[in-house]
Amino acid sequence: MLRELLKYILDFSENDLDVIVSCFKPRAVQKGTILLHEHEVCREFYFVNNGCLRTYFIDRKGAEKTRLILHDMNIGTALTSFISQKPSFEFVDALEHTELMYITHSDFYKLVEEMPSFAVFYRKILEMAYTFQNRRIESLVALDAHERYRQLLADNPILIQKVSNKILASYLDVTQETLSRLKGKR
Amino acid sequence: MLRELLKYILDFSENDLDVIVSCFKPRAVQKGTILLHEHEVCREFYFVNNGCLRTYFIDRKGAEKTRLILHDMNIGTALTSFISQKPSFEFVDALEHTELMYITHSDFYKLVEEMPSFAVFYRKILEMAYTFQNRRIESLVALDAHERYRQLLADNPILIQKVSNKILASYLDVTQETLSRLKGKR
Repeated sequence: MLRELLKYILDFSENDLDVIVSCFKPRAVQKGTILLHEHEVCREFYFVNNGCLRTYFIDRKGAEKTRLILHDMNIGTALTSFISQKPSFEFVDALEHTELMYITHSDFYKLVEEMPSFAVFYRKILEMAYTFQNRRIESLVALDAHERYRQLLADNPILIQKVSNKILASYLDVTQETLSRLKGKR
Repeated sequence: MLRELLKYILDFSENDLDVIVSCFKPRAVQKGTILLHEHEVCREFYFVNNGCLRTYFIDRKGAEKTRLILHDMNIGTALTSFISQKPSFEFVDALEHTELMYITHSDFYKLVEEMPSFAVFYRKILEMAYTFQNRRIESLVALDAHERYRQLLADNPILIQKVSNKILASYLDVTQETLSRLKGKR
């Protein structure tokens, strides 16, 4: 599964794929497990085989703000801390029982240094992460609640079925009442 | 100047620096010049020799939201559109008379493909852009107006002198009245 995703993102050789996949280790985590706490340094990069992870932070009013939701066949992590190796602003937790693969920061950057195709892969990941992040900001600033909900329905409908209203509302930055109304309306 | 900045970011060889600098072309733009309109594809990456550029977009209430301000010795562009080569959500304009150097998208990506050190440089740029962007989001969500102002004063005090209150308020996402009060208070 990881192999297929890697190949989907970049046309790796079979040999490179063998090396990369051998650097990932499997782990199963229960619903509610916190994989990374705020103020910890993020040292792992994740591939979600099945289940659901998310990254979130706590705003100054004490509310959870969900930034990223990773479900089946997605990759990601608390990337700012993973890049800087400084304490994270974000948490990473499991929204359900999740089977994942992870690679450590040192193995990841070793591959970046030693395998030219992985350096290109990392560049693509960074481009995708930057673009995704900017699209998030734009939609939070430029779209109203109804438009944001319709965009999510078009881009990632599985999230709407998979994730609780509480989390989804914090992802869309709307109240749960507004989300319920939007779900009823469509 | 460009040469010094490049060398500051990455330890390029003199030969690589020659090639890179030869790909940048000079341009002087008057205050108020719009270098990129919303819905245009961004095909240039900028180095500001002296002066000031910014990127901004218009929110759904019609207000300008300033995302990035580039002043002397900074590099950047409307990166999402530059990466994707799709129409930009953002504008790029000159806040004052600006002497800049620019490299075209095709020359930039040719260097990324052909010069290993430039590929590393681009990776660093993407990491920095992603981290900067996330820090912006965090500070907009987690800090109040006073804390955001103090953070800017610590990170980039020159902006506070250089940029008008109107632009600075849109950068900090506060009203001009709040900004004036914060400036008086410090």
